[in-house]
Amino acid sequence: MTLALSSCCADQPVPDARHYFSLPDALPMWRGGTVRGAQLAYETWGRLNRARDNAILLFTGLSPPAHAAASPEDPREGWWQRMIGPGSAIDTDRYFLICVNSLGSCFGSTGPASIDPRTGQPYRLTFPDLSIEDIARAGHELVRGLGILRLDTVMGPSLGGMVVLAYAALFPGSARRLVSISGTAAASPFAIALRSIQRDAVTSDPDWRNGQYSRERPPVAGMRLARKLGTVTYRSAAEWAQRFDRQPIRADLRREAPFAPEFAVQGYLEVQADRWVNAFDANCYLYLSRAMDRFDLTAHGTSPALWRRADLAHALIIGVESDMLFPISEQQALAHALEGAGIATRFVPLPCIEGHDAFLVDTERFGHAIGEFLAR
Amino acid sequence: MTLALSSCCADQPVPDARHYFSLPDALPMWRGGTVRGAQLAYETWGRLNRARDNAILLFTGLSPPAHAAASPEDPREGWWQRMIGPGSAIDTDRYFLICVNSLGSCFGSTGPASIDPRTGQPYRLTFPDLSIEDIARAGHELVRGLGILRLDTVMGPSLGGMVVLAYAALFPGSARRLVSISGTAAASPFAIALRSIQRDAVTSDPDWRNGQYSRERPPVAGMRLARKLGTVTYRSAAEWAQRFDRQPIRADLRREAPFAPEFAVQGYLEVQADRWVNAFDANCYLYLSRAMDRFDLTAHGTSPALWRRADLAHALIIGVESDMLFPISEQQALAHALEGAGIATRFVPLPCIEGHDAFLVDTERFGHAIGEFLAR
Repeated sequence: MTLALSSCCADQPVPDARHYFSLPDALPMWRGGTVRGAQLAYETWGRLNRARDNAILLFTGLSPPAHAAASPEDPREGWWQRMIGPGSAIDTDRYFLICVNSLGSCFGSTGPASIDPRTGQPYRLTFPDLSIEDIARAGHELVRGLGILRLDTVMGPSLGGMVVLAYAALFPGSARRLVSISGTAAASPFAIALRSIQRDAVTSDPDWRNGQYSRERPPVAGMRLARKLGTVTYRSAAEWAQRFDRQPIRADLRREAPFAPEFAVQGYLEVQADRWVNAFDANCYLYLSRAMDRFDLTAHGTSPALWRRADLAHALIIGVESDMLFPISEQQALAHALEGAGIATRFVPLPCIEGHDAFLVDTERFGHAIGEFLAR
Repeated sequence: MTLALSSCCADQPVPDARHYFSLPDALPMWRGGTVRGAQLAYETWGRLNRARDNAILLFTGLSPPAHAAASPEDPREGWWQRMIGPGSAIDTDRYFLICVNSLGSCFGSTGPASIDPRTGQPYRLTFPDLSIEDIARAGHELVRGLGILRLDTVMGPSLGGMVVLAYAALFPGSARRLVSISGTAAASPFAIALRSIQRDAVTSDPDWRNGQYSRERPPVAGMRLARKLGTVTYRSAAEWAQRFDRQPIRADLRREAPFAPEFAVQGYLEVQADRWVNAFDANCYLYLSRAMDRFDLTAHGTSPALWRRADLAHALIIGVESDMLFPISEQQALAHALEGAGIATRFVPLPCIEGHDAFLVDTERFGHAIGEFLAR
């Protein structure tokens, strides 16, 4: 999951295509507690038709903002640039695409880094427990606020691939179609282990200060470690064997320090960590990461009753054979459950070697599968 | 790789079966530098026969001591207990088994935690670069010191599975047979990435203090993170799905803290980290870990010439299909190279689900393969 934030010149205003939606006050949270004065940042592409039945709601992975693609208001490349636009897989001549920054994140939506109106201070760890269900609910409130009774499609990759399942379970009849990409109905203990070590890296950094870090001194070392490990879990051994083999590190990434990086793959991890560390808030990261571990669709019932109630007409479940974090067996099981509930389901296992992140990289294969599904 | 160190009562002397061998002074290191007054800790089982041709030299993985099995001098269980003994796979009625604590480690052999006789202070980061070749050379010096001209077998799992390759390459004719278990001729970029993140966790812990940590305050947080990630890489997703699924953490491992562990698998990681963190020296860990990344057998020539020169009669290469750190394709390639050089080679790919650590867990399958090979 690569962050798509271009840096911008200091003299020019940063282009911004975000809209903001005020969530109901106070917003009840799935595991208890409420959030006051919460808002959701979102961007849109294309036009909502008169019947208001051509909307696609797109949830993101853990880290991206709502800026999925360029637009006149913000011409910078988005995190899913090649998938979105007139004539693209998500055809904005035909569909009205809405991408939301997840509740709990830090790119305009309310989360642990936001100011609590009751105290005038950032929520930090006083933000209530965040669940995948809350991210789904916030998106649903936005959709209703836009006057859309039923989405054409609710779609999401990775964390977003979990959110769409919660969306369908919580709001029966709210979407005609569902697209879950490299998602799961419940994380495996292996994925939990890997994510929990990333959280440990942040919380054991003395600069985390129990969530009370200053803006000037965030837990950089912990966030760097977390991102490096995240990067390993998002890609695959086969890809790196092809891409880096045992090549030495690029000369410009070399540094003098004990146990400094020596191999090209280590340089790649350094670059990923550099890009991430000042772009994402540590507490927001912890909340979103834990929400993924905790999500378990069986909290909403069991198949096939759960899926019959959801009232979906069609579903597309995509997975990647080299994904170690959200293994293909989990997408296969999900597709099987949907089919078993009588939903016309297409399961597309892709042979990409880029692992979990393939949806960001192999837009040809993903574009083909999604474009064909939407065009039906 | 599990540490097999039993705690012992404060009142009783700790049983100890270690012998110590003085390495040549000064010991030249593969990448330059020398070590003064170095010693190697080792244990033995069985008896060296008159012809001195029944010796097996066993190198360990990264973390274990020389105590591979119980003996009259030290009746505590060893790290490979079920593999070693009269009538066992490594039959100590027949073979004279020598297990060495690797040069660079901290269980009696000289390493970064040892006192530099020139300064009276621990070497720490002044210890010269450590290579897999140095570990092999130190073992070879011991073998010669014991008056053994040719080993029956040189054997090792994991890091030890690399060391045996260096041994055969550096000292042609020094062993009749070779057993490399879950080893590799050169680590993949994926394994390098995972190990380098573990080292980063240690070196970015402020308590590491550039290697100058005190005995009272070692880099506990960094070592804990490193061990947790190590544990993930040593096992497999399939094993954990079976073993932990999404069960909650055991009640006795629960604690009150932000983002505290919630799932059984997280409790398992905590226990592994607890066991490790005060048992292994951080600098030794860093040296040994980096040595694994750097090892590349092609530094000693290419197949088949390299292997012809090694003058081995038989080889056994074992791998595990679920090993993500030393993938089975690497053992297969190694077996292929040995075979291509005319060495009678048996390649045994095992269907264990325990990942890299399977050699410590599935001693039935490993015992069968090794016992059969040795008995031929």
